[in-house]
Parts: sequence; structure tokens; C-alpha cells
Amino acid sequence: MISFESDYINGVHPEILKRIIETNSEVEPGYGFDSHTKNAVAMIRNACGCQDAEIFLATGGTQTNQLVISAVLKSYEGVVAAETGHVGVHEAGAIEYSGHKVLTLPQHEGKIDARELKSYLETFHADGNREHMVYPGMVYISHPTEYGSLYSESELKAISRVCRKYRIPLYLDGARFVYGITSSRTDLTLAGIAKLTDIFYIGGTKAGTLCGEAIVFTKKNMPEHFLTIAKQHGALLAKGRLLGVQFEALFTSDLYLKIGLHANLMKDKLLKILKSFNMKFFYESPTNQQFVIFENSFLKELEKEVCVSFWEKYDDTHTVVRFATSWSTTDEDLARLEEILGKLAQREG
Amino acid sequence: MISFESDYINGVHPEILKRIIETNSEVEPGYGFDSHTKNAVAMIRNACGCQDAEIFLATGGTQTNQLVISAVLKSYEGVVAAETGHVGVHEAGAIEYSGHKVLTLPQHEGKIDARELKSYLETFHADGNREHMVYPGMVYISHPTEYGSLYSESELKAISRVCRKYRIPLYLDGARFVYGITSSRTDLTLAGIAKLTDIFYIGGTKAGTLCGEAIVFTKKNMPEHFLTIAKQHGALLAKGRLLGVQFEALFTSDLYLKIGLHANLMKDKLLKILKSFNMKFFYESPTNQQFVIFENSFLKELEKEVCVSFWEKYDDTHTVVRFATSWSTTDEDLARLEEILGKLAQREG
Amino acid sequence: MISFESDYINGVHPEILKRIIETNSEVEPGYGFDSHTKNAVAMIRNACGCQDAEIFLATGGTQTNQLVISAVLKSYEGVVAAETGHVGVHEAGAIEYSGHKVLTLPQHEGKIDARELKSYLETFHADGNREHMVYPGMVYISHPTEYGSLYSESELKAISRVCRKYRIPLYLDGARFVYGITSSRTDLTLAGIAKLTDIFYIGGTKAGTLCGEAIVFTKKNMPEHFLTIAKQHGALLAKGRLLGVQFEALFTSDLYLKIGLHANLMKDKLLKILKSFNMKFFYESPTNQQFVIFENSFLKELEKEVCVSFWEKYDDTHTVVRFATSWSTTDEDLARLEEILGKLAQREG
Amino acid sequence: MISFESDYINGVHPEILKRIIETNSEVEPGYGFDSHTKNAVAMIRNACGCQDAEIFLATGGTQTNQLVISAVLKSYEGVVAAETGHVGVHEAGAIEYSGHKVLTLPQHEGKIDARELKSYLETFHADGNREHMVYPGMVYISHPTEYGSLYSESELKAISRVCRKYRIPLYLDGARFVYGITSSRTDLTLAGIAKLTDIFYIGGTKAGTLCGEAIVFTKKNMPEHFLTIAKQHGALLAKGRLLGVQFEALFTSDLYLKIGLHANLMKDKLLKILKSFNMKFFYESPTNQQFVIFENSFLKELEKEVCVSFWEKYDDTHTVVRFATSWSTTDEDLARLEEILGKLAQREG
Repeated sequence: MISFESDYINGVHPEILKRIIETNSEVEPGYGFDSHTKNAVAMIRNACGCQDAEIFLATGGTQTNQLVISAVLKSYEGVVAAETGHVGVHEAGAIEYSGHKVLTLPQHEGKIDARELKSYLETFHADGNREHMVYPGMVYISHPTEYGSLYSESELKAISRVCRKYRIPLYLDGARFVYGITSSRTDLTLAGIAKLTDIFYIGGTKAGTLCGEAIVFTKKNMPEHFLTIAKQHGALLAKGRLLGVQFEALFTSDLYLKIGLHANLMKDKLLKILKSFNMKFFYESPTNQQFVIFENSFLKELEKEVCVSFWEKYDDTHTVVRFATSWSTTDEDLARLEEILGKLAQREG
Repeated sequence: MISFESDYINGVHPEILKRIIETNSEVEPGYGFDSHTKNAVAMIRNACGCQDAEIFLATGGTQTNQLVISAVLKSYEGVVAAETGHVGVHEAGAIEYSGHKVLTLPQHEGKIDARELKSYLETFHADGNREHMVYPGMVYISHPTEYGSLYSESELKAISRVCRKYRIPLYLDGARFVYGITSSRTDLTLAGIAKLTDIFYIGGTKAGTLCGEAIVFTKKNMPEHFLTIAKQHGALLAKGRLLGVQFEALFTSDLYLKIGLHANLMKDKLLKILKSFNMKFFYESPTNQQFVIFENSFLKELEKEVCVSFWEKYDDTHTVVRFATSWSTTDEDLARLEEILGKLAQREG
Repeated sequence: MISFESDYINGVHPEILKRIIETNSEVEPGYGFDSHTKNAVAMIRNACGCQDAEIFLATGGTQTNQLVISAVLKSYEGVVAAETGHVGVHEAGAIEYSGHKVLTLPQHEGKIDARELKSYLETFHADGNREHMVYPGMVYISHPTEYGSLYSESELKAISRVCRKYRIPLYLDGARFVYGITSSRTDLTLAGIAKLTDIFYIGGTKAGTLCGEAIVFTKKNMPEHFLTIAKQHGALLAKGRLLGVQFEALFTSDLYLKIGLHANLMKDKLLKILKSFNMKFFYESPTNQQFVIFENSFLKELEKEVCVSFWEKYDDTHTVVRFATSWSTTDEDLARLEEILGKLAQREG
Repeated sequence: MISFESDYINGVHPEILKRIIETNSEVEPGYGFDSHTKNAVAMIRNACGCQDAEIFLATGGTQTNQLVISAVLKSYEGVVAAETGHVGVHEAGAIEYSGHKVLTLPQHEGKIDARELKSYLETFHADGNREHMVYPGMVYISHPTEYGSLYSESELKAISRVCRKYRIPLYLDGARFVYGITSSRTDLTLAGIAKLTDIFYIGGTKAGTLCGEAIVFTKKNMPEHFLTIAKQHGALLAKGRLLGVQFEALFTSDLYLKIGLHANLMKDKLLKILKSFNMKFFYESPTNQQFVIFENSFLKELEKEVCVSFWEKYDDTHTVVRFATSWSTTDEDLARLEEILGKLAQREG
């Protein structure tokens, strides 16, 4: 059985594990005051080209989104997101649990459009009833999106410009950040994103750590007493070193870039294989997630030997599934996939 | 200046005021334990044909919606509503503030469709990722809707059937309830609505009281310690008599029906006048709210003498406005409107 | 049956009712934009001697406390109150429901002590673990307190000074405000309180209105978009005129002072009667609430003819009850009480 | 520099680390559906002697407390705890953030007393105003407490009996659980605690894991859709294996007991050393935390070579500090401490 189910099916990247082992017997203070967290923060600042970035390490993506959004928004504000945004769909209402509405915009391959955002904000502020409505207080985008798509630099600039005009922060959910900046089809860099957003996070969990997401406040805009707010959310690890050591490793010798490049290379090979069998794409993304439409009976056979992720029903006889590559995808996995597809194609033919 | 701006621009209906005056010097216990609240509850039960209905009187609509929805939902549940539903649009995020998501369905003249509801629930429960999503735990409809439209008995039955199949309560927001059940174009009665819904409220504020909405739990399903929950929401009046006396008056000699019938009669006359001037309707409703499209310069003139409510921009040169009739609309108001429209039409012509 | 049960057992003061009647047929905009609310706000500003006070009218005390406290506090802050403070004991957890802790100080006849407050704040800010604790973000006092006691000007000044030193707002719950400033044993005026506090409210419900509390932000410190926050709490009345008209009446010809003076005069007479029968006081207050200890069997007889409020068990054979006077207490009520006590005393004797 | 600062200053116990390394390349599903979590759950059930226990693994203590308490309580309920309980003091208001009040009882060496609990519940349910108050809906105890003290079996039975009488669940915070059940001065076993409580958790973070707390619902009483509730709290790890593998290791060959026994043995040796220097105890506990009173200048010298944890100011010239032993405390640490104390004592003498 081989698996392309997701990018969090394996343990931890060997380089990171090595660092966990090496530092294990050190005595370190808790709650993120350890030397490794401090070091990781400095390394991330460097990589962002943003020396005064304020950084906090949390354990997971939903926790991060709830923490950031609720800490930044005022009580009467909501967060604007694409209708397919993770915060609005697959976080079990974590944002609403913290008291805030997710205000939705149409999605285009998972992305919002700067003009639609502008138009929404204009309409809102012109509405005589706006005092009875939820104020848009932040814009949330994911990059890569839930569909693996990427904003171009000009798209991100346009969104950033609208946010600044309306003085609302732009927050970028980077659960799969490393797979975005290392795509061959992006013109956005880590530093570029840091400049255009107000807050973003660099996901660790889906990029080779056991857990951990690095939240970056790029404009000296970390809310006051953020550590206390994190504690109140149950988001403060006693052994903060677990997060510190992993991000330290991720930013040592550009490991995060190597991980991203590897997954994207594997993705290119995956695409080539899928296309060689004339597979139909639901969405062919520039990053590590690919969405393929299978005839149901074919899929049933495929799933006996390959683990993929159900995405959605396409029609009565077809299904969309997701293939994900990651730091842990091997050439052997791909060769085996090619072999299995070949066998199934032959049987069909 | 005459006003059709809304149905809450006047004070209190004279019959209700009379009752406030008559009972003013009585000594009564607080917090809804007064004799008038008890009496009102009994009268509403009778009118509903539902002797074991459990009833609570709150002060306003948003308060009522927040109180009911958050008291009934479990923490991981959200409320399903039309995308134009009041709870999702014009309550400043009161539902989210209480921790719950508003899950939206398409609207059809402000209404949801039973088949779309069923399909949504089916899809949800078939989704392998549903444990990461907000569970639909209640269906919210407004009747009349925000557009003044009404569910037919068969439409409500169909929705009710879906709710029961999926064991989620059906909650009907009756801010303008009396204008619905007294419409000449409805086949739904108070008792019929009580039977088909699990919870509904009969709005007082828009039907002639100074404040007050009567929440009816029709199936012995009032959440335990509801008074304490209300207190926790700041929704428990010390002088509960204020609400009791007003609903007592509303249900004495069918005053609530008289108020509804009057407003609907005035609405019929209003429609006749508007049509006689060939006004273009955005939506012609069966209840006390009518939505008319005006050319902007005409509207500007009209608003010098008639107060109406801005609804939305129609296009660059036209605007949708709302006319509302109520218990306080008079034949004189209508005659004056006809006169003004005539004058303006002549000027245009 | 006569009643001293509370100060909200009667309807509305006749002068206020008169004003409700007079203004009833006026057409007014909703949500507090009516002319009467505007007028009431201007009158309250004048009475406070504070022309730039920002004022909002809410319906009840718990609603007001929840709204003010949650609107002012940051998410990681709590409100400091006496252990007997209404917010911490008798509001069904309304403050916690809005996400905030009530941090308690010892009570002295219902009051907090400036030195104990200072010591608490000093200790907190010196605590190395304070980042894991709830930050004190506001000080809450009630005046009169739940025991009817009053802060002296010097006591209030001392508390105010501590609050300013630590830059946290001082909020005064004035549910029975009018009975405080009209006590013969106070040196605090309305203007004096406005000066020394950052926020306070003047209770209407317990001072002769049907509902309504006037929240006064004294230092141009009303939180931004407070109307929207109120809407989100379900605390915004559509017919805001109901509150506006009542406070307008209350501040016309100093009605609020007359009401307070009358209740305090009645209280003096009540005390005289109780003392003439050698009743034992649990707490003899300078305002309209008096706490008396009765032998249980005596109380049982008394309650056949006089309605009082159970306060707490004193010991196995005695009970503390509260007598409250108000704008509606009459000389006849007191004469009847004297008669009943005389009859019971004779029977005992 | 040696450290007795806390029990979370080191990395992960070598046996657990070994297991992380061994399982690292396995492909496993996410969100707690991995084989190791399943295995750990089975092992914990066995250890508890409770085959139908329902178990969830969360990352940290505050997260666990917030998750459990808010998932179990109804909206109008609060949790009863000792005034020194971690939930009420050192969790930055996490319980209140989730909408619930912490109701406090007096503490006796960190413990609550069954009779005081009973008396509190009796008084509450007899209070005529209870509908305006927060209902006690759960009892929270920590074991060991924040002071390292332990409930005896008879004490826990008495508390359990009161909870059952009033039908409220008993929840035991076991952040330092393993140090409790392995104390030489306890008569409570893991199975015994499982029987007497309704919910408890076995802390990993302070017992040698990198993170992780195992929540045990002992009476088939895990709230419905608990995984979704956890997701909503940001408490669901994508790589749930991180928690599964660690608890699997902890319950393999009774490692959790070995860890506890070692720390308690080290504690005995620590006590002997401290006593040999006539140190004054603030509280001498039966578990791994010891509270010692030092003269300030002596402490200043000590802290140059030994890391301890500030607990509280004792008086103007003395300070209470905490020493904690753990799985990682060595005989060398203790020998070095003895040497340093000897040197300082000589200097003083």
C-alpha cells in the first residue's frame, strides 16, 4: 500500500528528529522562553527579511487561526474569507466559537479577488444599516489555498492595497506555506509575503514537523499580552522547546526550502504520470495537492493499493480525489503508482 | 410629513397603553412571575391550541434569536438559515457572539426551499470530513421573511418534515408574525404554525407593543433553566409585568388579529395607490412590507414629504425602498400619499 | 397585604407614565435616534455637569453590566469586584458568559477598600506568573451596594486614585443610584461621581421607570461602535423611545431627585418604626434597603400580612430579610406595618 | 547550574524518545485515528481497569481543562474548585473564556473538603435566588494538588459521594497524576481514581512526554461529538500519532509507574538533604513538589548555583520557593545540591 493521502501521514523529517534527539537532555525554561525558540525566532526573522517581526509558535493550524483572528479582531468585527476558506468550512466553527463571524466572498480556485473584496468593503461602508451588521475587521487568505492554488505577486499586492485602504489587516494562512514559495510557478517569496501581509503563519505540521506553526506578525502588530491570550486559548505549550527545536531545524541550512522543493519535484513527476494515463483533472495545482476525477469503479480498484483522499462527489459515476506529495514522498512511491495505474488501465482497456 | 418607514415608528397601540395605565398601581412580583405574564402565557397557549406550550417573554428580536438559538444548540452546532435571514445579516453577529455559526442556504424571495435543505443535510451527513465541520443543529426561518413573503402550509410542512427526519428543531422568527397570519394570501394559522414548528416567536415590537416578543416552545422543549439562561444573556426584565401586560392586551379580544388585519388592509390600499401610478415593484409581498423601485430623482422629491426606508441600490439611477404599513397607518396617511404621488407624477409628466 | 419586597414591585411613576402617554402618537426613528433619547442624553449630561459624557440607554441592570464590562475589557482581562458584587453573584454568570472573570476582593458592608485594591494590584503586577493569570482590567463597585451602603467621597476618591495609578477604568453600578445621591448620609453628588468614575449607570428600573438604565461614559471613553456591540448583545431596543421618554421624564424638574428623596424619607420612617419595636438589624443602611433579623416564627406570622424579601439564613432560628422603600412607598403602608408589628409584638409579649 | 525548577525543564524520557524514533517512518492516518493512539487507549483502559472508558489525547493541561469543562457543562453551569485550583488561578481565564464561572471553595493544603462541598451545594439549592446564580455543574479537584498534596481514598470517596448525591460529575486534574499514585503516602490507585471520578486526566507533559494529556471519561460519559468539540477548541492535532506514540510508550512495561517512583524516590532524598540543613518547610508534600522557606539573602546565594521556582513572598525577609523532582532528576543533582547547601551553611554559620 502506498499513500498520497495527505502531507501529514508521516512522522517527522529526519533532520528535525535529529535535532530533537540532540537537544533532548538540555535543561530549558518552559512556555517558549527556551533558547531554541529564541533561536528559531531569530532565524525566521532573518528568512523573512523582517528584523522586527514578532513571532509566536503554536501547535496546529485551527488553533493558530482561532488564536490570531480572535486576538486581532474587535468584538464587533468578523473576518472576510473565500467561501471555501479553511476557517469557514473545516475548523468546526472555531472562529465562531471565539465569537466572530466569517464573512464570505466568492472563491476562484480557492482564491478571493481584490476587486470583489474592494466592492464588498465599499458596499458595506455605504450601507445605512451597517451598524446592525458585522464589521469586516480582517481579511483571511490561504496560500497555497485549500485547492493548492497560489496568489501571484500582483494579486497579493492588489489585495494588500485594498486592505490598507480600508485599514484592516491581511492575514495569510500558510498551513502549506513551504509548498507555495518553492513552487516553480510562483513569483512570491517569503520576504515578499512578509511585506505584503500583516500577519501570516508558516506551517510546520504539513511540512515535516510533528506539530507547530510559526505565527509572524510582520508590522510590530502582535496584540499586547499575546502569550496570555494564547494561554487562555490552551495554545501555550509547557515544553515550548518542542516547537522551538523543530523550527530551528526547519530554518537551519534552508531545510524548509529543501522540503518544499522536494515535494514540488515529486508533484511534477506525479503530474507527468497521471497525464500519461490521460487522467482528468478537477484542478491541476502549482503546489503539492492535485485533484483528479476518477470513474467510481476505477477508483475502487485503485484504492485497494493506493491511499488517496476523498474530496467530493463529481457526479453519480465519478469522484474527485486529492493526491498530496510531501517531504516524505519517494521515487519508489511514484514508480509503484505508475505500475498500479498501468495495470488498472490495461484491465479497463 | 407622513411615514411608511417601518412598523416600529409609533408608540404603543392605544388598547395596550390603556392596559398599562390600568394595571400600573398593582403590586406584582418581578422577573416574569407577575399575574399578567401568567395570564398572557395562558392566552397565548389557547390561541396556539397548544396547552402545554412553554412560553417566555423577551424584549426584542435579536435578543430573542440569540437567546433561543444559543440555548437550544449544542456547542458544536450551527443554525441553518437563508442567506438573507435576519440572524445572519442584520444582528451584528449576535449568533456568532454566542459561539455559533449561521450556515446558509440560498434564498428564494427570502425563503429557504425544503429540497435544498434536505440536500444540504444529506450531503453534510455523507461527508467524511463532517467531524471537522459545524453540525447543522437547528433550522431558522422567518415568517413573514425579511422581504414580507410567506411560506405556504405545504412549504412549511415540507421543511418541517425534513427537520423531523434529521431530528433538528425548526425555529420560526415571527418578528412580524401577526402580519403573516392575517394576510389574505396565507393558508397558515397560528395553531398550524405551532404544530409544524418546534419553537417560534410572536413579535410584539413590530405589532403595536413598546417592546416584547413571546417565545413559544411548542413541544415541551424549553431548555432546562431557561430563566437562568435568559438572565445570563441580560434578557430577563426585573419588571416582567411590562411584557406580561402588553401581551395580555394583545391577546384580549383578538387584538393581535385586529392589528394584523388592519395593517394588511392598509397594505392593500397602498398597493392599489402605487399601482395606479404604475410604480415598479422590486417585490410585491402578501404582508405589510412592499418593495418599490424608484428613479432616484423622483425618490428625492418624494422623500421631502414621505418617509420610506432605503432597501438597496437597484442600479445607477434607481433605488429600492420599502413601504411598511402597521396598526398605526391611517386612511389619511394613504390619501396624503396618493396626493403627493399625483403631484409628483404631474410634475414629471 | 402590604409589600416592602423590593423597589421594582410597582409599575411606573405617574409622571413618567404621563410622558409615555403624551408622546405616544409621535412618529420617531428607532434604535435610540428618536428626539426623546437625544433630549434625555442632553439632560443627563447637564445633570452630571459633564458636557462631553457619552450616554447609552439599555433596558436592565445585568444587561448593562455585561455590555459595559465586555465592551471595555480586553480578552485577557477580568473585572475586580467585591465578593458580594452583583456581577459576581446574582447575574447568573453573565460576565463569564461574555468571556471574562470576576476577580474578587473582600467586602466591607458590600464595599471594597482602596488599600486592599492597591495591594491586590501591586501583588498582581509583581507576580512572576502574572502572564498565566487574568489581568485586572476594570474595577467594579456598586453604589449603593447590594447592602444599601454608600461610599464616602474620600473612599471613592481613594479608589479612583488607585484605578488611575494602574490605568484601569472605574465602573460604578448605579442600579439604585438615585437612592444613594439623595441619602442624608452621603457627601457624593451626581457630578462628583461622574468626575471620579470612568463609567457609571443611573438605574431607572428600581427608581420608577418600567425599564431602562442610563450608561454614562464620563471621559469620552465609550468604546467605538458601541451601538453595534449593544446590538450584538441583544441590548438595542427597536423602539428606543421607550427608554428615551422615561429618562426624559426622570430628568425633567429633577424627578429623579424627588423619587430618591421620597424613598429615603420613607426609609427614615421605616427605621423609626422598626426601632420602636426593638427589631435587631443585620445592617442598617443609609439608603432604601434595610436588613432585619427576625425570629423565624415571628417572621412566619409577619409574612401573612407583609411582603418582605428573604436575604439569608442567620442561624437555625433566625432569618435576615430585606425591607425596601421606593418612590411608591406610602405613609399608609408604613402605618399599616406599624399596626401589624404592634399586633404581633403584643401577641408575643 | 543544577535545576529543580519544575518537572517540565527536560526533554522527553529516553524510552519515549526511542518509540518516537522507531515509529517515525510509519504511514498513519491523522487526527487520532492512528494505530498508536488506538493502542495507547487500550493500554490506558487496561491500566484503569475500566474497559469501557472513553479516552482522548490532548496536548496540554490548560487546553484539557478548558475542553473538558466547557464540553461537559451546560451554559448556565459553573465548575466548583478550591480557591487555589489551577483552573481558577493560573490558566489566564481559560474557563471563563469558554463562558463558565469557576465557583470557589476554601482550600486546605490545596484540597477541598467534602463537608464544605456538601454544605455549599445544600445552601445553593435552598437559595430562593438560585435561578439568578451560576449552577454548580461539575466539581474540579487536582491530584496531586498545586501544593503537591494528595486526597486520601476516604477523602475522595466522600467527595465522590457528594457529587453523586447532587448528580454532578467529579473531574480530577491529573497534571502530575503519576507522582500521586506512586507516592509512598497514598492509598489511591489508578483504578481506584477511575472508579471514584467521572472524568480525569493523566498528565504526560510533567511526567516525561514532550506534550500530551490523556483524558479519561470513566462512565461512558464522553460528550457526543467530542472530536468536533476538540477541533473547535483548536485541540485536535493533525499528527495525533505524536500523542499516541508517547502514551503508548508511557504505558509499556509500566513506564509511567517507573517515572513516578523515581521522582518520588528523588523527592525522599531531597527531603532528607533539606532537613539535614534544618530548612524550614512551607509545605512538605507527599509528592514531587516541595515548598521551602528561605531567608532572602541565603536564597540569592543559592540561586547562583541552583535553579528553583519562586512560589510566593513569605514575609519581608523570607521567600517560599518550590523544588520539583521528576523522571530526570539524578543522584548527581542531589549530591551537588547537598554540596552547595553545605558551602552556604558554612558561610552563614
